[in-house]
Amino acid sequence: MTDPLPSWNECAAKQAILAFVKDTTTQGSPKYVEPEERIAAFDQDGTTWVEQPSYAQVMFAFHRLGLMAEKDPTLKETEPSKTVLSGDAEAIAKLGVPELLEVVTVTHSGMTVEAFQKAVQDWITTAQHPRFKRLYTDLVYQPMLEVIRYLRANGYKPIIVTGGGQDFVRTYAERVYGIPKDQVVGSAAGTTFSYDASGKAILTKDPKLLWINDKSGKPVEIHQAMGRRPVMAFGNGDGDQHMLEYTQGGAGARFMMLIHHDDETREYATDGPLSGFSEALMAHAKQSGWHVVSMKSDWKRIFSWQS
Amino acid sequence: MTDPLPSWNECAAKQAILAFVKDTTTQGSPKYVEPEERIAAFDQDGTTWVEQPSYAQVMFAFHRLGLMAEKDPTLKETEPSKTVLSGDAEAIAKLGVPELLEVVTVTHSGMTVEAFQKAVQDWITTAQHPRFKRLYTDLVYQPMLEVIRYLRANGYKPIIVTGGGQDFVRTYAERVYGIPKDQVVGSAAGTTFSYDASGKAILTKDPKLLWINDKSGKPVEIHQAMGRRPVMAFGNGDGDQHMLEYTQGGAGARFMMLIHHDDETREYATDGPLSGFSEALMAHAKQSGWHVVSMKSDWKRIFSWQS
Repeated sequence: MTDPLPSWNECAAKQAILAFVKDTTTQGSPKYVEPEERIAAFDQDGTTWVEQPSYAQVMFAFHRLGLMAEKDPTLKETEPSKTVLSGDAEAIAKLGVPELLEVVTVTHSGMTVEAFQKAVQDWITTAQHPRFKRLYTDLVYQPMLEVIRYLRANGYKPIIVTGGGQDFVRTYAERVYGIPKDQVVGSAAGTTFSYDASGKAILTKDPKLLWINDKSGKPVEIHQAMGRRPVMAFGNGDGDQHMLEYTQGGAGARFMMLIHHDDETREYATDGPLSGFSEALMAHAKQSGWHVVSMKSDWKRIFSWQS
Repeated sequence: MTDPLPSWNECAAKQAILAFVKDTTTQGSPKYVEPEERIAAFDQDGTTWVEQPSYAQVMFAFHRLGLMAEKDPTLKETEPSKTVLSGDAEAIAKLGVPELLEVVTVTHSGMTVEAFQKAVQDWITTAQHPRFKRLYTDLVYQPMLEVIRYLRANGYKPIIVTGGGQDFVRTYAERVYGIPKDQVVGSAAGTTFSYDASGKAILTKDPKLLWINDKSGKPVEIHQAMGRRPVMAFGNGDGDQHMLEYTQGGAGARFMMLIHHDDETREYATDGPLSGFSEALMAHAKQSGWHVVSMKSDWKRIFSWQS
């Protein structure tokens, strides 16, 4: 028998995954789950790839802002784009969520959905992570990729449930995770239907944010997109708590897991309020019977290119 | 070779479907379409099942209103529920869209998503169509069911893109069309996350309509749910025009088809402004190279139980 999770040490978390999948896919098992119900929800940032020092999508937005400023120099004069374009890391780090959302909104609207896909594609296949000097898609956690593949091989449907924009993540999810576009649930802005100069129907991304897929929004958007409650859920912070609770609230066998970033040598150690992994969350996880993965102890390697 | 579309007469529309599927699925064909791009969008009411004399979902809403009035007699005193509960067909027929939406909203909110699914399930497995005296799910068009199965057998992903509520259609789409819940795109109301008395996480349907999936809303919701432009689209009225235009607007091979209700003996003949199939739409279809199906001439049988 080939080990389906070779990047995992022989730990309780690994055994829990293997046992759950066996129990829920063996006909006649009291925990058996019908194939159509086998939805496994994965948060992305911090759960399936690196989210430090900042979200990939924010880096993409900064990059696009630079391209836009070449054509529209007024962006260099007005906040918050002025600060972002200054390149002053300290000042940028102080920008709040509303300012970052404004930059994301400006850089993610005003083009057709196809033009946006191309812009993301161009960036994600060339931009490098500041510390690891590799493509962001090389910073997917190999152990989680193995879980996704193992689940799929056992009739589970892995879905991404991300606070990131679904139009952003959908450009690479199929290639990187093997997860089709329609199984990526994320934050979303509206689009507007119209016709281009040649009379062809187009959709243009507009600056109106429809929802942020975080915290209690995650169960809401999972229902909207999938129409089912997941059976398994994987997250790494406060933003995922409601999704794990919603998963646990259903009848029958349930599996909830949190990834704990405690390996500053190979990745990051990001406990504390800023990372979203609080003491309260850890206590809640223990009380609720959720599995907690130590990246440091439980994972043999974090990235595919590490020995 | 078994005929994949046995309920179709040997007509141009049938030949067009067979030729398109062959062209787009044969490796090396200039019209070849990659498997992941093979999305085929089907409107539901009037395209895959009967929409006369009124939408099934409206009948469900009226039924639920009756159940609610048993517990809350004040519904019999206030409009528009008073008119609906009176059973006066003539008065009910005069209700406008806002009144009908109000009845749908009242009857589709205030319960968990699971309780709503059960309510739909109870109704759809027992309620009979007033003319045909059969379950609504027996009034699916057999020729369209054959198209859906034929497309699926050729690597296409058939999706439902309906003005009806996605929570409603998702309760039976898998059983009736073989279309999973997450491939049903419809109108949607919001849900609210909370905890029940035992502390379990639940979603409750709330009365706030998020969007009506009709006309230019259809391309918008297809993008939101699927992240792709369909390659094929099937509709039957003005509400589907934008979806067909959006389908046609993409690069490569495209297929657009309208179902024309012209058979009052076996089903309904519903030309004219009320049905949504206008002369303007027919002219637009011809000009755009869309296929138009005559239910009377092109379909050997309309329902599976007809000889």
